[in-house]
Amino acid sequence: MEILKKQSSTRENLGLLAVLEALEGQEQTTQRELAQATGLNLKKVNYTLQKLLEKGYVKFQRVRQNPDKRNYLYILTPAGIKAKSQLTYGFLKFTLDFYTRMEDKLLSCVKEIESSGVDRIALYGASDVARILLGIVADRAVKVVGVVDPGYAGREYHGCPIIPVEDLSTWSWDAMLITSIDDPDVGEAWLLGEGVSSDRIRKLS
Amino acid sequence: MEILKKQSSTRENLGLLAVLEALEGQEQTTQRELAQATGLNLKKVNYTLQKLLEKGYVKFQRVRQNPDKRNYLYILTPAGIKAKSQLTYGFLKFTLDFYTRMEDKLLSCVKEIESSGVDRIALYGASDVARILLGIVADRAVKVVGVVDPGYAGREYHGCPIIPVEDLSTWSWDAMLITSIDDPDVGEAWLLGEGVSSDRIRKLS
Repeated sequence: MEILKKQSSTRENLGLLAVLEALEGQEQTTQRELAQATGLNLKKVNYTLQKLLEKGYVKFQRVRQNPDKRNYLYILTPAGIKAKSQLTYGFLKFTLDFYTRMEDKLLSCVKEIESSGVDRIALYGASDVARILLGIVADRAVKVVGVVDPGYAGREYHGCPIIPVEDLSTWSWDAMLITSIDDPDVGEAWLLGEGVSSDRIRKLS
Repeated sequence: MEILKKQSSTRENLGLLAVLEALEGQEQTTQRELAQATGLNLKKVNYTLQKLLEKGYVKFQRVRQNPDKRNYLYILTPAGIKAKSQLTYGFLKFTLDFYTRMEDKLLSCVKEIESSGVDRIALYGASDVARILLGIVADRAVKVVGVVDPGYAGREYHGCPIIPVEDLSTWSWDAMLITSIDDPDVGEAWLLGEGVSSDRIRKLS
């Protein structure tokens, strides 16, 4: 995870970008509103605004007519507008690096499944992870024979058939990979409850 | 960027996952090797190993035959194997959340371009960002009429024609959006050098 090397500076940059985005188009605002808009806590908002002021990315002015509410008028400077664009490209790069890392991770999971002698896998959970895995296995030896998802209404998911719950025991598959990411343990418990033996259930790891 | 709310704990979890991944399949290792494999500094590696030991995710043993090299034998416990899987699902969720945020960002850039009266955009840089934008504009009013990339050999990029450098002034486009993420400023300078006027160049922001 060489990606972690850059994470410290990226984290600060993401904070700067979040506050710049929240400021843009605002007439006037409070630090509390900025905290709500960005997801940063008040201490971080204050720190980030100090940084933005130091760097000359924003100018600010206390709004006199509202002395109690501590409203401020923040204005992005030309340097701030330029910085916001640079931070945006940095954010895109950071996200795409993580995405590539995720694809590598999923590919290595697929390879591990293949090397354990499994030919036909089913996926539990019609999620983005399932969608990405369908792309990865397209040119691999292992085949995805279906997707199980009791909450999914369609008949197929990105070209792969949805396995009806009642066909779970008759459908031909060697292992069931849990691709529901919000709560993989719930998926595992459900499968065990449907009589799937634990040695046929695989989790991403 | 509500995503920032969860980032602190995610960061520690990514560290735990990176060290668990680096330990897996290793016979014995040093903290220095772990730092190299994970991208974390030695202080962070030490902190993370302490966390993993506290949580009971790894057991360790000093290897006696190498007293100088401070080699240790680390073993993932059953709890550690389970935790690694949970952390992996967390990492996938984190990455997909960021990816969704990136798509939202690119969509809002497209909307801003549309609202400025631009109908036909060209993209500078045959990058992943260009590829994602091509997907986003597919059902929008604005059209991508070509991709400019002096370093790209093909004739088209994901179904979109590559604009030969010599056709830059005759090809019909209203604005050029910089999609090269490694160094957008270099792209901008190159376009200016090719005689593109600065008011036709757009950057992501």
